[in-house]
Amino acid sequence: MKIFKNNESMGAWSNAMHKAGETIALVPTMGYFHDGHLSLMKIGREAESRMAVSIFVNPAQFGANEDLDAYPMNIERDLELAENIGADAVFMPDKEEIYPNGYQSYVTLKYLPGHLCGISRPTHFRGVATVVTKLFNIIKPDTAVFGSKDYQQLQIIKQLNKDLNFGINIVGAPIVRETDGLAMSSRNAYLRPEERESALSLSRSLEKAKKMVASGTTKSSIVKEHIREYIEGFEHTEIDYISICDPETLDDMETIDKPALLAMAVQVGRARLIDNTILVNLNICPE
Amino acid sequence: MKIFKNNESMGAWSNAMHKAGETIALVPTMGYFHDGHLSLMKIGREAESRMAVSIFVNPAQFGANEDLDAYPMNIERDLELAENIGADAVFMPDKEEIYPNGYQSYVTLKYLPGHLCGISRPTHFRGVATVVTKLFNIIKPDTAVFGSKDYQQLQIIKQLNKDLNFGINIVGAPIVRETDGLAMSSRNAYLRPEERESALSLSRSLEKAKKMVASGTTKSSIVKEHIREYIEGFEHTEIDYISICDPETLDDMETIDKPALLAMAVQVGRARLIDNTILVNLNICPE
Repeated sequence: MKIFKNNESMGAWSNAMHKAGETIALVPTMGYFHDGHLSLMKIGREAESRMAVSIFVNPAQFGANEDLDAYPMNIERDLELAENIGADAVFMPDKEEIYPNGYQSYVTLKYLPGHLCGISRPTHFRGVATVVTKLFNIIKPDTAVFGSKDYQQLQIIKQLNKDLNFGINIVGAPIVRETDGLAMSSRNAYLRPEERESALSLSRSLEKAKKMVASGTTKSSIVKEHIREYIEGFEHTEIDYISICDPETLDDMETIDKPALLAMAVQVGRARLIDNTILVNLNICPE
Repeated sequence: MKIFKNNESMGAWSNAMHKAGETIALVPTMGYFHDGHLSLMKIGREAESRMAVSIFVNPAQFGANEDLDAYPMNIERDLELAENIGADAVFMPDKEEIYPNGYQSYVTLKYLPGHLCGISRPTHFRGVATVVTKLFNIIKPDTAVFGSKDYQQLQIIKQLNKDLNFGINIVGAPIVRETDGLAMSSRNAYLRPEERESALSLSRSLEKAKKMVASGTTKSSIVKEHIREYIEGFEHTEIDYISICDPETLDDMETIDKPALLAMAVQVGRARLIDNTILVNLNICPE
């Protein structure tokens, strides 16, 4: 497994691979791997003949009061896991390589970031879209794999890929959960033992909502109110948003008359956790 | 010469060329070719083994009260000229191909557009950076050629290329002028006969400034005041800006103690004309 720390050597590897007739899958990450990351890498490894993993804690997608400095890291372990799963290359640039002195170009989207996490994190998706654009240009992947836990991010990258004509196959991978249902996240490391039960309120409320909708509830406000009360019943929780919306545009849906995205962000102790699922009313929209 | 109207067929041509070991020069234009465009194409033809020319009047770079609908066109003549000069491909998409329904991704720069033309045309360079990003991704050129009349645009594209890691060789081509000194521009077509003399005030004032600085004037304000009066002495002229600034950052320079960019925009009748030159104080900065 090759390790690259600068744009030029990473790009040279990609060019050499493409010249040799290989194709490249990219798995962009911020490191501190869990089984969710590993599932993305397995998908990447199957999708193309070569797989590159990037590890970069992107300062441009953290707000001023967010957890950039606390973000967990374990590079040695990450490299071992990536190698074991069959990565051919790891790209791990430092901040100055990605945002050198005088850096000033940003990629923004007009509509999709105005929903869900973008409301309380107003510059987050500009940072995501910018770094992903850079990674796409440096690594020139044929496929790129992103997790669906960050559903809004996945939608934004799909839109960006289409709008800016990258021509990359964007794959969204299913959410990977702990056995108790908690969606895997590097930020779960922030949870203290006594907060762990509270963190389960997210995945459990998704299950409750799915059942409500499957059994006929179509008013979004009723579903949202029900799970808001449920989550608020746990200690240490502070809800940022609970949204039921169109899975493509992320526009609010008042009535669940077609498959809808239920997405939420909840602060649990120091950890800002997100989770989501698709709600299907079986009477109206059979799967 | 191949003509492509959609992203996919254009991209397929580029991929086929690269696979065959060819390299591609791109000359992005808004059509209505004059000798300035042809000079870019000559440079492109020499720079790489294949040359593509794009013709697209980009709505995203026109403001609400600007001349988008009036912008001159002559596609048949353009195609003939491109073919004669040795273009291998012309890309001429329509607006819906470039900005389909639901389009929402834009590329912005933080500092460079806050100068010169960007002040009176606040969304112009966002439109330029966005369409150039798209053209780069669709056509994947090895070299791209831009004229230096649009000096700020050229600087922005160089920065964009560096910031977003396109890895393209960006070439700035010298300004091409009519025999009387008027910088060639598609917008010169707007000039009525009685405005033509006034249009010469731009290039003539550049010459005056060059002489003033070469012979020892170092205060920018004196140079600017002198040519402001000169240009205002012509009928039909309305100055947008006259700037003496750093050729890299475009930041204002009070003292011409190193090579400086003199750039100006002047409305002459219906035509908004721009021109620029580099001022060199021969005592301080010998060429």
